[in-house]
Order: sequence, then structure tokens, then C-alpha cells
Amino acid sequence: MSKRALSITREENFPDWYQAVVRDGDMAETSPVRGCMIIKPWGWGVWERIQAELDQRIKDTGHDNCYFPLFIPMSFIAKEAEHVEGFAKEMAVVTHHRLKNVGGKLELDPTAKLEEPLIVRPTSETIIGDAFQRWIKSYRDLPLLVNQWANVVRWEMRTRLFLRTAEFLWQEGHTAHADRDDAMAETLKMLEVYREFAENVLAMPVIAGEKPANERFPGADNTYSIEAMMQDGKALQAGTSHYLGTHFAEAQNIQFQSAQGLLEYCHTTSWGVSTRLIGGVIMTHGDDDGLRLPPQIAPRQIVIVPMLRDKPEDAALIEYCSGIEKNLKSAGIRALVDAKPTKSAEKRWNWVRRGAPVIVEIGGRDAAGGNVTFMRRDRLRDGAKIASQTMPLGQFVSEAPGLLADIQQNLFNDAKKRLDDNIITGIDTFEALADYFGVASGDDEAAAFRGWARVAWSRPEGAELEAVADRLKALKLTIRNAPLGQEKPEGNCLFTGAPAVEYVLIARAY
Amino acid sequence: MSKRALSITREENFPDWYQAVVRDGDMAETSPVRGCMIIKPWGWGVWERIQAELDQRIKDTGHDNCYFPLFIPMSFIAKEAEHVEGFAKEMAVVTHHRLKNVGGKLELDPTAKLEEPLIVRPTSETIIGDAFQRWIKSYRDLPLLVNQWANVVRWEMRTRLFLRTAEFLWQEGHTAHADRDDAMAETLKMLEVYREFAENVLAMPVIAGEKPANERFPGADNTYSIEAMMQDGKALQAGTSHYLGTHFAEAQNIQFQSAQGLLEYCHTTSWGVSTRLIGGVIMTHGDDDGLRLPPQIAPRQIVIVPMLRDKPEDAALIEYCSGIEKNLKSAGIRALVDAKPTKSAEKRWNWVRRGAPVIVEIGGRDAAGGNVTFMRRDRLRDGAKIASQTMPLGQFVSEAPGLLADIQQNLFNDAKKRLDDNIITGIDTFEALADYFGVASGDDEAAAFRGWARVAWSRPEGAELEAVADRLKALKLTIRNAPLGQEKPEGNCLFTGAPAVEYVLIARAY
Repeated sequence: MSKRALSITREENFPDWYQAVVRDGDMAETSPVRGCMIIKPWGWGVWERIQAELDQRIKDTGHDNCYFPLFIPMSFIAKEAEHVEGFAKEMAVVTHHRLKNVGGKLELDPTAKLEEPLIVRPTSETIIGDAFQRWIKSYRDLPLLVNQWANVVRWEMRTRLFLRTAEFLWQEGHTAHADRDDAMAETLKMLEVYREFAENVLAMPVIAGEKPANERFPGADNTYSIEAMMQDGKALQAGTSHYLGTHFAEAQNIQFQSAQGLLEYCHTTSWGVSTRLIGGVIMTHGDDDGLRLPPQIAPRQIVIVPMLRDKPEDAALIEYCSGIEKNLKSAGIRALVDAKPTKSAEKRWNWVRRGAPVIVEIGGRDAAGGNVTFMRRDRLRDGAKIASQTMPLGQFVSEAPGLLADIQQNLFNDAKKRLDDNIITGIDTFEALADYFGVASGDDEAAAFRGWARVAWSRPEGAELEAVADRLKALKLTIRNAPLGQEKPEGNCLFTGAPAVEYVLIARAY
Repeated sequence: MSKRALSITREENFPDWYQAVVRDGDMAETSPVRGCMIIKPWGWGVWERIQAELDQRIKDTGHDNCYFPLFIPMSFIAKEAEHVEGFAKEMAVVTHHRLKNVGGKLELDPTAKLEEPLIVRPTSETIIGDAFQRWIKSYRDLPLLVNQWANVVRWEMRTRLFLRTAEFLWQEGHTAHADRDDAMAETLKMLEVYREFAENVLAMPVIAGEKPANERFPGADNTYSIEAMMQDGKALQAGTSHYLGTHFAEAQNIQFQSAQGLLEYCHTTSWGVSTRLIGGVIMTHGDDDGLRLPPQIAPRQIVIVPMLRDKPEDAALIEYCSGIEKNLKSAGIRALVDAKPTKSAEKRWNWVRRGAPVIVEIGGRDAAGGNVTFMRRDRLRDGAKIASQTMPLGQFVSEAPGLLADIQQNLFNDAKKRLDDNIITGIDTFEALADYFGVASGDDEAAAFRGWARVAWSRPEGAELEAVADRLKALKLTIRNAPLGQEKPEGNCLFTGAPAVEYVLIARAY
């Protein structure tokens, strides 16, 4: 069996391959509503696992979950627009609250026009800030640490399942603090929660760092991100954490009485990750046979396929498989017997494309011998053939947790090696940068793999920074972030020639 | 301490009491967005518990969770309106996708008007039906069993926190089947899931039965509900399950090829419960000291309050309390030490109002003696004084799971007795019915407690049923449901005089 389970490979066309994995892996599909996706059961199962793991971490760091309204009054957005430059205006606006039947046809009811339009939340700083303003009276109420899991809408022109959709699901943390130090500590703490979560749960290595000023969240003093390298070399911003200073507090009058009796503005933060993470998982771990899910987020970690032959012996085979399932579940493993009356080869490939970490196939000989034959999704092939192993049932069950841990680690290691091997250093002229990204040499820039470039810069600001961003944009490049904990740079800035003050990562990006 | 923890009693004014419990129990508050609520951490914690318990039951009965778009194209709603009578038209309509800044003021951008307005989902039959139509090809794809947890919006004129809000949160199950029997079995199975969940998890006894034709979900062949009795005697519809026949399948072309090769319409169902359940819990279990939460849905089941005195001994007290917390957590109990630097009496009453099932208060003497002093929220008072008990730490920890189970059962028993005692039988004329509900005798109908009346009727249809509904409406009454599993009725219909065919429950309702 040397044929691949997908009809297209990563090398042939990465964007089309991505779509094939999402589709053939039963993750999601487009809906009749422009830019909105339908998340299918397998994709939703991954999101449930992501929510459970991250929610625990958010709670463990002292945050309470709440729920705020879907709609935001336009006046709130207007107030924010006054205070915040570069504020995005593409949002879904509700203007009416009733339809009416006019001669058998449904129309907007003009008598049901809202006095003030409502915005479907693109993010909730303003509506949560309004609550903070009411809830916070004294320094004793601080820090105030809340989070919500919600759907948000941003009108995107070009959408791609999971990566960029008009409606998406996320968590958004919002906190208020007495001073800058406490707020900044929170901002970095949650960035670290995201890093640890991405690496240990999603098996997706990331670089945590600070975004340049031109890439900040509008209204933020500092924006930090975790950036992951996809298999086409592009960067994916996988989570952000913002220190908002007192901008939102001033716009919304979020004040507290200090221990000294003074009225002061709170320092606020916000941070979020979204269903975009699922796109990141796909582009980090998928291969030409489909998705490969890290065991920690796989809705089913071990799937057992009885090789049914539509004969009386099938019943015994299913019973044997159910016994394996029961044993695995007792060990805390999310196991499933797929006893659907479909050809077993079809079922195998279905689970391969969906990325189940371990696929067990049980034939009459396995059952008779008390054995288990299985394949690891992370090491599916040995040259042209499928790599399967057989071992006694007891051994398989006792080794299963270790096997899953090994798959998790193996997926991480592969991705980590890719990241480490493809951050290029030593580029010290803009020409060399353009050359590396294949523009100067006339390569087919869309297809060729390019990693990231780590370059030293002088951290220009204002118009000088805009000029840098424009030069990079012409090469379809962006500055991803300035990694935290980096050593002192040497030499001069690639862009300005001034002495360098830090390294930044430059890449094509999603 | 004979003063009550709330400023108003149920008897004084039940609706105002309800608002006081919601507010002083930190459950939710109104938002600046008309009809939309902010669910606060304690209220959200209850919803998380409800979700976890119900979600497990939905999965255990074979349903897969998915996620469908927030928006529904107006054409989908129009198609439904053609097929379905009595279809509600109060819904939030998105007409634009951009704002623009006109002379410093934000306005709708007229160039960003949507070609087709989008409706914020009031329920998802149409958008999910559209997916079913694509997903279902053959009888092998049936039954198709999906569920989603989502926010929905219905433009309500008069809103009340949890009970009726413009935006609310719910789960909606949608299933497709090959024939009526299978769909009806599903409809009743999920009704039973709701009944078992309401009684065993929410400790809220309910009557499961079929709604009369005039109370059906628009487009349903049969609508079933669970109805709970609130402490003011009113009924709360706490969950519904609908057999939709082939109406939606015909409107949306949801067809399958049968085993015989024929193209047939699917039979579909839908069923849901919402954040309204939290209102039901409050009005079932709350007392004049605030909320009383059944342990199964209490975010914190046992709260430990150290009686701090702002002295050096406080540290040892907190350490002793942390030890209790650790022991309880090891036993799988959601425990919390409330070590905030607030007066301990204030903390006690805070947890009383929030309805924590067990409140432990630890003073220096308890710690020195290795004891635990605690109060049960379900039996807070013994006459005028607070009823507390003291026992050795080891005994408390080992008895804690049983204590929580007893509180759960006790709350259920109290509510069950109220329900059983207040369903009046033997009313056999319309005048007696009016009399019972206090209308004829001129009682203050809003304040007086009235239960439900179980009356025999002939199940009239069409105009005859409308006339019955109108007569009841004049008394502010509705038919709640015809209980399942009832005995054969005797006598004649209260309304029509024709021979009775079943009993129905009549009540005032939320």
C-alpha cells in the first residue's frame, strides 16, 4: 500500500493539501453563511479537548469564567474609536429586531429599527470594561481576573477554515490591576501559559516574544505573541497577550481608590487564543495521509477496528474488541471500537485521515491468539509499506499510556527540529534577506519552503518603523516578534544601520 | 441571629425576592445591552456544572457535538416561514458589515450593506437541516444524532434574568431518522434524559408530558415538556423535546435512500434546555436567606471560612483550613478556603446568599481541638438561631460525601412534596377552576400561592382548542402538559362536556 490517503501532497500544493486534510479528516466544512464554518464532530472533539486543558490552566492561575453579552452598543465602539487608533471597522451590525411578512415574502420590518445599532462582538474589551467600571471600587477589588469562552465575529474578506473565519470561537481573558508591574506580570504569565499549553498539549513548539509596535493590538502598550512554524515555513500567530496600560481604563473610567485614598486608573490586560489553534495543529502535524493528532487532544486516542467479514464469527471479534476498549478505558484512555458495517480497509483509512494516534486492527488470528495488531499514526509507514506491530493484549494495554506519551513527544520533537533547523541567522543586509526569501533569485515564492530569518535591528519607531514594515510587505514578509530571553545582539540594524538593540524574527505569515 | 440574609422575603414579593437572590447571590446582572445578561462567576460556575452533567448524558445516548454558524441567511428563515405556521418573527437582523468614521462619528457604512440580511440564530433547525440535507444520502447514515451548545437570540419585550433574556445559552439537539417510530423513540428518550437530569442533578422534580396542540413548537407534530413547580406555584417549562415529523425534511429536502432503494424524507427531532434552568433552580430551592444550591451543581460544595482576627494566630488558622480543603479535595469534593481579609460574619452571609451547600467556620478553638464547625445550607436555621454542628476533623471528612448526598436528597424531597401536595384534583367545572385560582373570589391573584389543577379533558382541536386557550388566558392560565403514563380519566371534559380522554395540568406559568 504505497498510495497516500489524500489525493494531494503538501509539496504539490500546501493550501490545497490543508483543505483536503480539513475535509477528509472530518474536521470542518464551509457553511452557506459567508465566512462561517461548520465544525464537525471530530473537529469539535479536538476543540473540546483544547478547551478542557486550557480552561484548567486559566482557572489554576486564578481566573474566573463569566459570560458577557454577544452584542455591544455602537456607542461603546464609538468611544473606543475615539481613544484607539487603527481600530478595525469590519464588523457585523444588527439594525433591526423583527421581520415581517409582506405578501408572502419576509422583509425587514421598518418599524422595528433599533434606536442604536448593536455590534456583534469582535472582542469584548468595551463591554467587559463597562462591567469592570461598575465592579471595581477599591484596591481590595484588584486584581480582577476574568475569562470567557465565546464566539466572536470579524468580517473577513478572505476566509480559510479554522485559520481565518468571520465567526470563530475563542477564550478572551480580561484583567484589571492596581499598577503597571502587576498588569505586566499578568500579561507575561498568560503568555507563558499559552507557550506551555501549545508545546505540551498541542505538541506545537512556539517562540514567545513581543510584537513590534506596528503589529500591536490597537490600544495596547505592549503585545506579545506565540508564533509557530507551519510545514510550509510560514509563521502562525497562535496566541496573543496584551498589556493595555491605562488606555481602556481612561476611555471607560475604570478607577479604584488606592490604599492611600487616591482615585487611580486601573492597568488592564487581555489575552486570547481561538479555533485558529486547530489550523495550527493541522499544519504542524499533518502529513500526506491526513491529520496526525497529538494524543492529548485526540477525541479518540486509540481506535479499534474489527476486521468484520459479514460472517457469524464477527460477533466474537466485536466482543474481543470491546474487551480491549474496556481495558483501555479503565486505564483512562479515550478508546473506541469502530464496529460500523463498512469495509475494514475503508475504516482504517478513515481513521488515518482523521489522525487517531493509534489504530488497532483485529482479525480472527489476533483474537484467537489473544493478540493486538496496531499502527502508530506518527510512524505510519516504513518505506512503502504500513508499519504495524503485534503484541499480547496484556502487554498492549499496559504499554498503551507510554505509547501515547511517546507519540505526543515524537510529534513535538519532529516539529521542534523543523523550527530549530529553519530559523536562519547571519543575514545582515536587506538584500540577503530578500535573497533568502527567494524574491531576488526569482524562485516560485509561493511554493518554495522558506523558514524564518532572525535579524538584528535597532527597534525603530513611528515613520521609520512604517518604512521598514512597507519594505518587508513588498517581500510579503512581516516581523513576527522579538523573542523573550534572547542574548544581546551584535552589529547593526539590517534596516536602519543604527546599532542593533535586539533580534526579531521575520517570516511569511498566515 | 434571626434577621434574614435578604432584604425581602418570598411572601412579601416573589418577583422582587427572585431578583434579590440573583443579585445578592452573585449569579448575574443586567447589562447595558437591552435584554442581555452578564453571567457572573458564581452563576457561570453553576452553568458549567449543568453543562458537564448534561453533556455526558447527551454523549452517553449516542449524540455527537458539533458547531453551526451563529448567522442564518434570511432565505432559510423565509423557507421555514412558508412551511410553518405561527413562526415567530422577533429576531436580531444583521444588515451591514462595516462602520465608518464620518467627521469623528461612527456610522453605518452604506456601501457595506449585505445583499442578504443575516439572522442571529433564534434556534438552528434551518441551518442544521441544510447540513443534514448534504450529509445524509442513505439509510446507512441514519440515525444522525447531533447536539450543539450555543448562544441564541430572541427579541423579547419583557425580560427577566435567566428566565427570559434576549440572548441565552442552551444546547440544541437535532436528529434525523428513517421513520416515525425511531424519531418518536428519540424524542421521548431525550425527554426522559431531561427528567432524570432535572430530578437527580438539579434536585428539581418535574412532570414530563405532552403539550397541547396550541403550545407546540411551530412545525412540530408533537411537543413534549418537563414542567417544574416554582415556590409561587407557577409552572416553569424547563425543557422541551419535539417530534418534527417530515415537515422540516420536506422544506429542506432532507432525503435518504431506503434499504429498498426508495427516496424517502427523514423524520426529524429537536430538543433543548437553556440557562433558564438556573432560574428554575433558584425558584425551586431558594429561601429567604438567598440561594440554596444542590451539591451536584454547586461550583463550591464546601466553603471553609477561617475566623481571622488580624492577628499572628491567623496564619495557623489558615493552615488548618487549607488542610481541611486538601482532605476534602482528595475525596473529590469541590472545596474552597475563603481567606479574604474580610470580616468572617460577612463572608458567612455571602456564602449563605450564594447557596454553598456546606459552610464551615473555623475559629481558634476548632483548630486547637482538631474540630470542624459547620452549617448545612439546606437546614440553616433552628427556629431563630443558626444551626451549626461540631465534629472531629476526621469524622467530618469521612462523612462529607454522605452529607452532600443527604443535602441533595433533602432539597429534592422538599420540592417533591411541594409538587405532590399542590396538584389539585377533583375540579370538574370551569367555574371551580376559576374559583381555585382565586379569580372568582377576588383574591390578590399575583400574591396568593396557587398550585396546579389536574383536570380531565376531551383533547379538542382547532377552533375548539383555541376557544379553550382563550378562556384560560382570561384567567392567566395555560395548559402545561398531559402527563405521560397517566391512568385513564373519568367523567367529562371540563371545557367541552364531551367524554374525557386524558388529564392535563393547568397552571399559571413563567
